[in-house]
Amino acid sequence: MAAPRRGPRERMIYSTAQLMRREGVSSTGVRDIVAHANAPRGSVRHYFPDGKEQLVNEAVAWAGNFAASRIERLVAGMSRPTPSKLFAAMVQQWIDEYRTQGFGAGCPLAAATIDCAETTDSIRAATSQAFSTWRGPLAQALIHIGVPARKTGSLATLMISTLEGALILARAEQDMRPLTTVVRELGPLLDSHVRSRQG
Amino acid sequence: MAAPRRGPRERMIYSTAQLMRREGVSSTGVRDIVAHANAPRGSVRHYFPDGKEQLVNEAVAWAGNFAASRIERLVAGMSRPTPSKLFAAMVQQWIDEYRTQGFGAGCPLAAATIDCAETTDSIRAATSQAFSTWRGPLAQALIHIGVPARKTGSLATLMISTLEGALILARAEQDMRPLTTVVRELGPLLDSHVRSRQG
Repeated sequence: MAAPRRGPRERMIYSTAQLMRREGVSSTGVRDIVAHANAPRGSVRHYFPDGKEQLVNEAVAWAGNFAASRIERLVAGMSRPTPSKLFAAMVQQWIDEYRTQGFGAGCPLAAATIDCAETTDSIRAATSQAFSTWRGPLAQALIHIGVPARKTGSLATLMISTLEGALILARAEQDMRPLTTVVRELGPLLDSHVRSRQG
Repeated sequence: MAAPRRGPRERMIYSTAQLMRREGVSSTGVRDIVAHANAPRGSVRHYFPDGKEQLVNEAVAWAGNFAASRIERLVAGMSRPTPSKLFAAMVQQWIDEYRTQGFGAGCPLAAATIDCAETTDSIRAATSQAFSTWRGPLAQALIHIGVPARKTGSLATLMISTLEGALILARAEQDMRPLTTVVRELGPLLDSHVRSRQG
């Protein structure tokens, strides 16, 4: 997740996402966010009058949009996209991160759900919306690739679920294998849904 | 996860697992654990000299053993087990919980990984061990069902990953559909690996 070169508001949202994906939401303090974003001290109250809850909600929305636009870029960059290639590319982003930066960080949407779904309904609703934001272009991409429209929502749910779970196993085990395994095992199933193969 | 009728030590471990799966590890305080377990005040220092970290590590180990023994019971209770039936039964446990108790709680292993993998290596190692404890009997069960031994580890990783991720989506969306979807979509793939079907 590349850092945006933007103003303090955007930097604080980005920093919130980055910090919560390392240690979860509860351990991420507003002071940590301000420091990480290199933002002026009074800027939280100015930009985020509802404080941490608002920061987390906006970070969750940002992460959903990031994931969605990534799907669009991945498909646009493939000459002959298939569902398995798309899933592999989604996972590869994480493999690259873990290879270069270690297993320190997971998905911010998973962190927000695990820590906040039960306690803060606005954050839970934001995660639901973000998963939906992510699933939309993924389902669209599957249609474009040739998966029948009635299957795309289910396959998008399967792909996102499997990726999210494999990230947890990879971080727990500090091992890439859960990620490479789900790519290998799920690929044939995903491709079996393509209506007519392009020659 | 049924409550054990045991002494204060076991009750505190169980309570730790229950609380962390609702609000994550960071939000779960030792006082909350003592109160939830209805344990004497001084008992934490007595039973868990390393405090919360030890409690979480033992809760993680407990959860891994719980998941493992559940696999064994599920397979033992099936007259004609198949990989898809086993996966459906693993997921059904959660559907039943969410139907009767709402979407308040997720998997304690996911919570421990998300919140602690980066900050507390003993907890990360405990989650890695617990996932391994869970995967072992699952892979054994798949062998018993007829999956070639070389595939069982990979399929066990796929099943656990997909379940973990679908739990996150289900809690975010407060909807059973991610769980029912992954059961429906993954089933045929899992069964395609069975060597010789029993008539």
